[in-house]
Amino acid sequence: MTPGDAEPSPAEPPALPAGSRDVLPVEASELREIEAALRDRFLAWGYREVMTPVLEFAAVMDRAQEGGLGRAFRLFDESGRVLVLRPDLTIPVTRLIAGRLADHPGPVRVFYVARAFRPPRPGRAQPSELRQAGVELVGAPGPAADAEALALLVESLQAAGLAEPQVTVGDVWLIAAVLAGAGVPEEVAARMRRAAAERDLVEWRAEARALGLSGTATTLVEDLPRLRGGRELLARIAREVPDAAEECERLGVMLDLLDRHGIGGAVHLDLGVLRDRPYYSGIVVEAYAPGVGVPIAAGGRYDGLAARFGRPRPAVGFAIALDDLHRAVVAQRAEPSRLRPGVVLVGGMDDDLEVARAVRRAGVPVVALERGDPSGEGLAAADGWRFVARRSGGEFELHDTATGERAACRSLAEEIASRA
Amino acid sequence: MTPGDAEPSPAEPPALPAGSRDVLPVEASELREIEAALRDRFLAWGYREVMTPVLEFAAVMDRAQEGGLGRAFRLFDESGRVLVLRPDLTIPVTRLIAGRLADHPGPVRVFYVARAFRPPRPGRAQPSELRQAGVELVGAPGPAADAEALALLVESLQAAGLAEPQVTVGDVWLIAAVLAGAGVPEEVAARMRRAAAERDLVEWRAEARALGLSGTATTLVEDLPRLRGGRELLARIAREVPDAAEECERLGVMLDLLDRHGIGGAVHLDLGVLRDRPYYSGIVVEAYAPGVGVPIAAGGRYDGLAARFGRPRPAVGFAIALDDLHRAVVAQRAEPSRLRPGVVLVGGMDDDLEVARAVRRAGVPVVALERGDPSGEGLAAADGWRFVARRSGGEFELHDTATGERAACRSLAEEIASRA
Repeated sequence: MTPGDAEPSPAEPPALPAGSRDVLPVEASELREIEAALRDRFLAWGYREVMTPVLEFAAVMDRAQEGGLGRAFRLFDESGRVLVLRPDLTIPVTRLIAGRLADHPGPVRVFYVARAFRPPRPGRAQPSELRQAGVELVGAPGPAADAEALALLVESLQAAGLAEPQVTVGDVWLIAAVLAGAGVPEEVAARMRRAAAERDLVEWRAEARALGLSGTATTLVEDLPRLRGGRELLARIAREVPDAAEECERLGVMLDLLDRHGIGGAVHLDLGVLRDRPYYSGIVVEAYAPGVGVPIAAGGRYDGLAARFGRPRPAVGFAIALDDLHRAVVAQRAEPSRLRPGVVLVGGMDDDLEVARAVRRAGVPVVALERGDPSGEGLAAADGWRFVARRSGGEFELHDTATGERAACRSLAEEIASRA
Repeated sequence: MTPGDAEPSPAEPPALPAGSRDVLPVEASELREIEAALRDRFLAWGYREVMTPVLEFAAVMDRAQEGGLGRAFRLFDESGRVLVLRPDLTIPVTRLIAGRLADHPGPVRVFYVARAFRPPRPGRAQPSELRQAGVELVGAPGPAADAEALALLVESLQAAGLAEPQVTVGDVWLIAAVLAGAGVPEEVAARMRRAAAERDLVEWRAEARALGLSGTATTLVEDLPRLRGGRELLARIAREVPDAAEECERLGVMLDLLDRHGIGGAVHLDLGVLRDRPYYSGIVVEAYAPGVGVPIAAGGRYDGLAARFGRPRPAVGFAIALDDLHRAVVAQRAEPSRLRPGVVLVGGMDDDLEVARAVRRAGVPVVALERGDPSGEGLAAADGWRFVARRSGGEFELHDTATGERAACRSLAEEIASRA
């Protein structure tokens, strides 16, 4: 990222806006591999891709929440209406489902692989383009749908190459039920939820203590956003705040289903995971990977969102941050990336077009050079191609840069296949 | 596309800005198939993907040509600098290569699959987001590089499902050589080239006649932008305007190479294909498909572009308009799209998670419903899934909606595989 304080001039290399960056070939192909792995998993679970436009009316996006969208790139259309570059994918996809898929009979399962846009805060090295892959499961309200979303999240992260994804699950309804059941007045509860969403546990505790609670649940309420665990945590909450038993029961069913999905070990309850957006309801989800300090995926249940676009419908989903996932996947790789099995064919651009075609047909990439071009090995090294070939009389000399060997052969395609 | 004259209100379905649209699942998956086919061909020819940001400095993009960028979405960053949503991919990719790949030894081969953005003209139903897939071959100046770009274009369009792509090739240098060789003064030639680029052949002819030429080339000059053909056309031009013989020779070499690439029949010279951008040089390319009135791909040689970003380097490339290509591919398909081989599994969300997992592992998508959900067949019909399955005692009943058959089976995965 190049902050670029001065207007660029032709004399200096062109700058990019703050938060913008170029992606070079190695990273681009890794990102595409990750996208393909995620798409493969989403399709296996019956999710279907949708695409929404980058440009939306600000007034439509603002419907999603009180107080408007927050940070977003804004511009004007020809008629002076305010447009935004979508700062998020959940809201446009919910808009699409409410409008174009309003008559769909069953649960709607859709996914997207797309970019959201947010202006970086001044002076902060934040990306302005956020590559995301996510799913929405709309029309299914229960813990089975929550479990499906979590299982698909874990399976997708694993398919993308993350050995041990860790998923933490909080719950908006559980927190609300505990606070109500312990007798916390709603206006205090609202402040406490906001403090928890901002990870301000000191503020939470101060609010809790100021209440002067004295029942069995006093410690539980004070510690709530610090609590992590599984079924034993749910049992404790149900025991100490019986009004929250129903929410505990629901989360217990979800944990049982996660075990049966085969991913129980990857998911843990963490009651400090909360969101302050009014449309969230039920579970709140974050996924982490070793070596990456921010969540690589986030999501949850937001049964209140669809109604803002015309038709109330329960919904659960998640969005994976592709650049963060990519960093996590690369960080855990032991070996550097290998040479790719393509061949730089000197003369393939003007003399040996037919040979180039035959090798490509055999599934091997051919990078063609003109006859006599001396840059074969240099090009192979720069771009990571394993082989360099040049004609030598009626045969070809194949240089295997991985081993240093040089072999004469009549059929390039066969010789390369024998070394793959 | 919804022009949306009034500000949207919560009572009516949300509108989209002019030129924006949603893409629903069937079209999205067809677009992704086309992208995958193109990417596969680009990779086979040794091209590597790069990604550039959507947001660029307007001042940098404006360097590409005198008079600025033309239509583009503009906005301001925090410091008041003008940003644009990239209106084109060639210019950002050239910027990237000039900066980040300046030290690359050989010809640089890159591709992109990305979106450009242009505000629709008021009152016109133009898309504001242009999905494009394109390549740039930078650092190779000759007809062999031109032939490679054309061969890759034809092969890519065929791989995407287009039976008979037609590619027309004009040439900026040939036109300039003919006009100069026939004695047309440069300021008149400039007006004539502009007229040809705008397809205003009446204006071209009026300019030509006003010159009062009287040599052997008079008719040739008057008719130039109407001329189409192959080697016989090049021979005629070389004969009538000897100063243009060198350009004819170059194009003749290119035609020979195209034959050897196996795509000679798909490419024709059309001297009316021109561009008025100053950085174009040499060939100008357009590709057409039956049933689509606009070019589905455009490109050419622009040796003058890279110098504007720091380092002169010859370049040839093309961009395919994915939405237009998609329309062409769908238009030539005889049969409607088939049912997909997935199964809606009633109870797969809560009772039969393990069965769902096994069927997915066998490569068959499973769309899960909760036990007793009556929407199985409705969901299958809405989303195009072929099978619906539900438990019946120790077995499953598999409903094949393609044939109407219902079969009892113990292993869903095996039963579905036997019907694939």
